[in-house]
Amino acid sequence: MNDAAHHNHGEEEGDEGALSRRSVLRTTAGAAGAGLALGALGTGAASAAEPEGTAAAGAAGASGTSGEAAAPARRGRTMAGVAFERRSVVRVGIIGLGNRGGSMIDLFLALPGVRVVALCDPVKAKVESASAKVVKAGQPAPAVYAKGEHDYENLCERADVDFVYVATPWDVHFAMAKAAMLNGKHVGVECPVAMRMDELWQLVDLSERTRRHCMQLENCCYGRNEMRVLRMAHAGTFGDLLHGAGAYNHDLRGLMFDPDYYEGPWRRLWHTRLRGDLYPNHGFGPVANYMDVNRGDRAVSISSFGTPALGLAEYRRANMPPGDPSWKETYIESDRTISMVQTAKGRVIRLEHDVSTPHPYSRVNSLGGTKGVFEDYPARIYVEPDHTDDKWADFAQYADWDHWLWKEHANPPGGHGGMDYIMVFRLMQCMRLGLVPDFDVYDAATWTAPVPLSHASIKAKGAPQQIPDFTRGEWRKARPGMDSAKPE
Amino acid sequence: MNDAAHHNHGEEEGDEGALSRRSVLRTTAGAAGAGLALGALGTGAASAAEPEGTAAAGAAGASGTSGEAAAPARRGRTMAGVAFERRSVVRVGIIGLGNRGGSMIDLFLALPGVRVVALCDPVKAKVESASAKVVKAGQPAPAVYAKGEHDYENLCERADVDFVYVATPWDVHFAMAKAAMLNGKHVGVECPVAMRMDELWQLVDLSERTRRHCMQLENCCYGRNEMRVLRMAHAGTFGDLLHGAGAYNHDLRGLMFDPDYYEGPWRRLWHTRLRGDLYPNHGFGPVANYMDVNRGDRAVSISSFGTPALGLAEYRRANMPPGDPSWKETYIESDRTISMVQTAKGRVIRLEHDVSTPHPYSRVNSLGGTKGVFEDYPARIYVEPDHTDDKWADFAQYADWDHWLWKEHANPPGGHGGMDYIMVFRLMQCMRLGLVPDFDVYDAATWTAPVPLSHASIKAKGAPQQIPDFTRGEWRKARPGMDSAKPE
Repeated sequence: MNDAAHHNHGEEEGDEGALSRRSVLRTTAGAAGAGLALGALGTGAASAAEPEGTAAAGAAGASGTSGEAAAPARRGRTMAGVAFERRSVVRVGIIGLGNRGGSMIDLFLALPGVRVVALCDPVKAKVESASAKVVKAGQPAPAVYAKGEHDYENLCERADVDFVYVATPWDVHFAMAKAAMLNGKHVGVECPVAMRMDELWQLVDLSERTRRHCMQLENCCYGRNEMRVLRMAHAGTFGDLLHGAGAYNHDLRGLMFDPDYYEGPWRRLWHTRLRGDLYPNHGFGPVANYMDVNRGDRAVSISSFGTPALGLAEYRRANMPPGDPSWKETYIESDRTISMVQTAKGRVIRLEHDVSTPHPYSRVNSLGGTKGVFEDYPARIYVEPDHTDDKWADFAQYADWDHWLWKEHANPPGGHGGMDYIMVFRLMQCMRLGLVPDFDVYDAATWTAPVPLSHASIKAKGAPQQIPDFTRGEWRKARPGMDSAKPE
Repeated sequence: MNDAAHHNHGEEEGDEGALSRRSVLRTTAGAAGAGLALGALGTGAASAAEPEGTAAAGAAGASGTSGEAAAPARRGRTMAGVAFERRSVVRVGIIGLGNRGGSMIDLFLALPGVRVVALCDPVKAKVESASAKVVKAGQPAPAVYAKGEHDYENLCERADVDFVYVATPWDVHFAMAKAAMLNGKHVGVECPVAMRMDELWQLVDLSERTRRHCMQLENCCYGRNEMRVLRMAHAGTFGDLLHGAGAYNHDLRGLMFDPDYYEGPWRRLWHTRLRGDLYPNHGFGPVANYMDVNRGDRAVSISSFGTPALGLAEYRRANMPPGDPSWKETYIESDRTISMVQTAKGRVIRLEHDVSTPHPYSRVNSLGGTKGVFEDYPARIYVEPDHTDDKWADFAQYADWDHWLWKEHANPPGGHGGMDYIMVFRLMQCMRLGLVPDFDVYDAATWTAPVPLSHASIKAKGAPQQIPDFTRGEWRKARPGMDSAKPE
């Protein structure tokens, strides 16, 4: 999914493999903020060098295992329910033009009222190829930022950009979102929006202070099945909601060791740093929407459990030649993590992450309530009174429940079954019409909080970690989210 | 599954509904042992009257949330690896002849070298019907014990019984297993073997002291798919094992409120007493076998999460007339519980329990390792190097891996797809040939420990509860279990 461009590759570096790795580590340290030790300010991501015992103790101490995690004082009004300014044309800047950004640009270019005005990637060939797409689409040649790892700051400073789209390695998501907001831009970030708890709080504060939206561009929330289940859930089809589950179970071993697919080994290197759920958003986002998390319910705690970390080393043993740089890496990331999120209303959400063992792709995507249950992969449903025979029924029977976005765009272009296009269409629509976005910085922080907290819980042998209330109390108010009405 | 006879119904009682309920409560208190307050001696089951806060504190305090749960001093040699005495004929006494015992008797009667010599049930019609079956099978008329709630003690005292089979309400499993062993009988008990942690320890001690086997008759361990997965797992097909899952997700609402199906409301009443997994064995047993739990690995902790308890009350509102005795009940049992068991080798086992919402039947039954994964309902598999296309394959392709029991008995008689018969056949075979049983009291205690511990963890908001080492160290030794070789 998040096959973003590698953004840490200095143009002058010749030995791509070895230097990219150092570059990533350097960039990660930079993203944590000058003078901040890794692990400070809440449950930080452990560095590879951090001794086990210290990290576990620090994590447990920082996040606590009982009571509410304290929210720092608010530094600006809430961004919940805040509409975009209305504009006839949205001017987009894109940072990161690798696998993800380089294909998502097609969807921005396909929409009326959207102009791609600036592009950034340190790999010149990628930014040039993207630039040619803009011109081919009949738009003026975009401004190009390809001068190293910090040129994105210059893109963010442009006066003619309304929205910054970030599709770079995870290591630098936070720094880029921050730069965009500090320069007055709304920003949409690929998953996960950041990797550390203190970064999530900073994003919340920045969004509130700058009055700019910071959004986790969680495309799976716009999946056809997800949106249909969302509408049915909100209409009461499943009764009172009780439990749900989501996952990112996707065998990425081949891609992570492919020297060409990713721009450097940045994704694999996260398996040397954290033990928890590195990519919770695809599973958490849709289920959080079903349950109105941050819009009437709240995710209050997470307990995580991780298996041994064997998959990547086993793959390397079978596939990588002696001397490959990967042989210097020690993988600590659990092959499968399972996290249990509890909500204020007592519901339970299971999250899974497994990218390092052989298995068919699944986001699980299930929802259960007092009247029935839905499970995906493959999509099947059982709800009373429609079903009474104890057998799964085909979800296709419920196509009438499709969200209006899917009724209007029956065969959307682009990858991932069309949900990318639906997401971009809807976001640009909200910006042009001056609507409240379907998700905001509180959703981004909530959906991403499992990254640091699952690591902390696994190190603490499954002790529950409190998920902070990023909304500072606003979650109690019911308000619209993904289940939007079609604009007049 | 455990559709056993109601064993608490005094013959003289006319008003079945109201009196049966009092009878069950009385029997439950009796089973906990005279003079022992509920909740004492480890994590006890909470009574309906117990205040929430007190119970949560007591449970957490008793079981602790860190370190090893201390095992009391051993009072006899281990029963791990202890063979039955060889005998040409096994003489069986059956306690409980309701839905479960009344059908399982057919399987005992179908086997050569097995005699059903004594029957016990306080409901005279049930014991008479079973007695007629014995005579019809060409065996002498069995001794009959139908004089109230304690007549089973007289059955246990008979000198001509080798094995006691207990198929009664959960409330009295412990007392009956205890009586059988104290009278020198091996005993097999329907799920769960007991309901409280102190009872599990007493069963371990009794088995070791009396040198009698106390077995949880976990029929699902003998399912065809389960036995095939077991063999493949032990042969390394899935690589190093990482995670598994099992469940008892079975919509029992109709049966639990049916005035005729169960003999009294004993099963429903457990929903007024505990919040956790009431019936973990069907899910836990098979996965524990895959992972050699107690035979090289050990279940060390459990964290449980429970949804709100809404299903039974909603069902009652829709279906039960005013004045029905059920209206006096308050249901606290979570509609769905999800428990995460961690093993000494770092593996993770997920257990689910849901009998109070609408959904198709599933025991989940999954297993994953570094080479692939199996999931049931429906059975499907993905293992390297056989599969490389990211798509599930049909498990039927692996029929060659069937356990010898299933190769010998391709179309076994009896219910539950034949696994009941396979279980009874194998148990009687072990007793006749003087073999070590496939499972023992340590397995019974381990597979049942989630009953009290999941309740305690849910009350403690998901805090991990230590699972004691019932084997007192013997778990480290690899030894045969369900994956038996065919006797010569």
